[in-house]
Amino acid sequence: MNTRGDNCEPHRPAHPRIFTMCEAGKSDHHSAERCVDFPVSVVLPAGGTGERTGLQTPKQFCTFLGRPLISYTIQAFESIPWIQSIVVAVAKENMDLMTDIIQRFKHRKVRAVPGGSTRHRSICNGVLALGEEERPAVGRPKVVIIHDAVRPFVEEDFLYKIAMAAKEQGAAGAIRPLVSTVIATTSEGYLDHSLERAKYRASEMPQGFTYDVISQAYQRCSESDFEFGTECLHLALQYCGTNAKLIEGPPTLWKVTYKRDLAAAESIIKETLSRSACVITGGLAEAVNLADALRKAVGALDMELDIVPDLMGDNARCLLKEWNFIQVSVSHSCLSEVEAILVALEAENRALLHPVVVIWVHFSRTDELPVSERAPTAIMELASTAKHRNILIYGIQLKQSEHWERSASRVAEIASALIRERSPALVGQLLQA
Amino acid sequence: MNTRGDNCEPHRPAHPRIFTMCEAGKSDHHSAERCVDFPVSVVLPAGGTGERTGLQTPKQFCTFLGRPLISYTIQAFESIPWIQSIVVAVAKENMDLMTDIIQRFKHRKVRAVPGGSTRHRSICNGVLALGEEERPAVGRPKVVIIHDAVRPFVEEDFLYKIAMAAKEQGAAGAIRPLVSTVIATTSEGYLDHSLERAKYRASEMPQGFTYDVISQAYQRCSESDFEFGTECLHLALQYCGTNAKLIEGPPTLWKVTYKRDLAAAESIIKETLSRSACVITGGLAEAVNLADALRKAVGALDMELDIVPDLMGDNARCLLKEWNFIQVSVSHSCLSEVEAILVALEAENRALLHPVVVIWVHFSRTDELPVSERAPTAIMELASTAKHRNILIYGIQLKQSEHWERSASRVAEIASALIRERSPALVGQLLQA
Repeated sequence: MNTRGDNCEPHRPAHPRIFTMCEAGKSDHHSAERCVDFPVSVVLPAGGTGERTGLQTPKQFCTFLGRPLISYTIQAFESIPWIQSIVVAVAKENMDLMTDIIQRFKHRKVRAVPGGSTRHRSICNGVLALGEEERPAVGRPKVVIIHDAVRPFVEEDFLYKIAMAAKEQGAAGAIRPLVSTVIATTSEGYLDHSLERAKYRASEMPQGFTYDVISQAYQRCSESDFEFGTECLHLALQYCGTNAKLIEGPPTLWKVTYKRDLAAAESIIKETLSRSACVITGGLAEAVNLADALRKAVGALDMELDIVPDLMGDNARCLLKEWNFIQVSVSHSCLSEVEAILVALEAENRALLHPVVVIWVHFSRTDELPVSERAPTAIMELASTAKHRNILIYGIQLKQSEHWERSASRVAEIASALIRERSPALVGQLLQA
Repeated sequence: MNTRGDNCEPHRPAHPRIFTMCEAGKSDHHSAERCVDFPVSVVLPAGGTGERTGLQTPKQFCTFLGRPLISYTIQAFESIPWIQSIVVAVAKENMDLMTDIIQRFKHRKVRAVPGGSTRHRSICNGVLALGEEERPAVGRPKVVIIHDAVRPFVEEDFLYKIAMAAKEQGAAGAIRPLVSTVIATTSEGYLDHSLERAKYRASEMPQGFTYDVISQAYQRCSESDFEFGTECLHLALQYCGTNAKLIEGPPTLWKVTYKRDLAAAESIIKETLSRSACVITGGLAEAVNLADALRKAVGALDMELDIVPDLMGDNARCLLKEWNFIQVSVSHSCLSEVEAILVALEAENRALLHPVVVIWVHFSRTDELPVSERAPTAIMELASTAKHRNILIYGIQLKQSEHWERSASRVAEIASALIRERSPALVGQLLQA
């Protein structure tokens, strides 16, 4: 999932419209020289009923880690500076839900409009809404990108390619190789012939059009197109004579279609959130030693650690970057350090888009009690409150012993599992390393 | 995933070959009257390199919950009484790995043969091997089912349809609706035309052939077919004049292709294992009350509980059926009851195919200490040993209090999370309800 936008505040467009691409991203593929010097807006048709997932909730509204799928997709676009506005077309019965999602997750570039009875009608409503923009700073777009609300993993690089090709050619669309052989069937259900796989491609999303091409196509197309058509590229060809440029997209363009895809999407999001953690040591030698041992151990588990004494000054960057925090406390078993992290996270509204994990590792010397009698209750109470603010707190205790290395690797194993699973049911537990 | 076979010991074929379908399954779709009165064998080409998953291990050998994907697929076939034998064609460098998998998971109907350099060569090797069966009780099959090693969720119902149609028509194959529009591209990368979606289907697996059709097709086909062909149905048509019967398959036929599919497969398997649990109460009134409260609470979490006083007599059925056990202990904090469950599970070799979860819920009266000082160490030690035998032990403690209902729902929430996540890193922990 695209989480880059959290580092780069999108700029509002101003004439002449020059939007440089965000440089703060993790992707190495795009260079800062590229720029999009024309206004681009997005239409997300989201009127689907989610039949194929086998779930009651339409799939764009299914939640992962407390946030609906459509909010992830919106965020992927919103984080891109050169995207000026996003229109989501939703069924009337979901309009309140959508408004609530926009407010709750503080989406700023988004407007919801009523969808139509078919996909084309919904897209058409979205395009019309773009032509009637009321905010003076947001003009009619040059290029309209159409995307599915249920393809949350779209990346800036590819959107850039689509936007540029759409401006040049009038229309552009993502394609992917066919996964299965495509066959023609006889009316009796027998094999007629199979297509030569190399000559065909699957048409995917996103697609891009100049505003003029897509709005003309919808003005000119027939009721039958509105009712039964599926392919915007086809309308552009038929009604505007525009041959779309086809661009091979990455596998991340996949569409959440079936119930199993919901699990896959959640797993990708969890993996993205679990790549690194910040360890706060307080600067004490024993804590630093433990942090170093942890770094070595989680390295084997594909996680990177950023070790800092505190979250002051330059180290505050961790608060803006990390989704996971490990506070190492030596000897004293009070939770004030964890409480300080909570205050800092809340000041940054850090857990708005994803749950943040905070693990308290309590390290006691051989001659001390493991933790105070009060500690298990204290951490459970703190965790119960923090959970409502989307911050998941867990505790791990370990005793200094001869088996130092083994203990460190146990802490790493447990912390890594807690971070990857992000289980709300297990918050407040004090685990043994 | 198909786990039905664990209840029905497959019968070895005997002349005249009559195989009734397993009646012990959870599926309601098949009736016991159906029978397959001819020998059916399976070829699984598994020589792929797994490029598309972006992983180093070929995807058929990627493990979920400690078992490689291919073993799940083998198990899906092995559990069907009317499947007499399975041939897996693997790359030479993976032959030892495959042999090890067959032994480790005690697959009995399976033989590994060397695969070829292409998919068709691997399938051909498999078909040839079926013709050279050495075991006298296993003759040359009438029907050969070809399936992908990376489609583990195939079900008996659908295999039955394929086998019957293959016997009647000579060839049969699974189809699915197209997920995306298929388009033809010009040589310059522009849209040429889009196909009318209703006339085409995606060709999927499994496919079935009479032994004669598939072996003739491979005898007659060209080097170019072996090298570049993908579609067995096409070979049957071209070289044997056999028009395959096409049968619409369920979405569960999907193929593990990308890395995200591995996550989806693991999630499906975990969900299948988490549908129910057995609660053992020891018969004490307080434990029975708690179990009843748990049943109510996990019902809201889509899990069913089977409550028994012990695992003796008729209740031993739980040992053969359940993947999850919750032992409720009142007052005394010794682990002997959990140890007894372990002994029983091991006697049945119950954790061979999937990890089994055992949760010890310790319930103390208000005037007692929560657990003995030794309990956390004891459960950690027991869990460390059991983990090596694929049994995952966790502990939950709760105190009788005024907030009885809240505690029971906390236990249910924690137990349900532990069962669903099946985290090896958290075994041996004693959690607080």
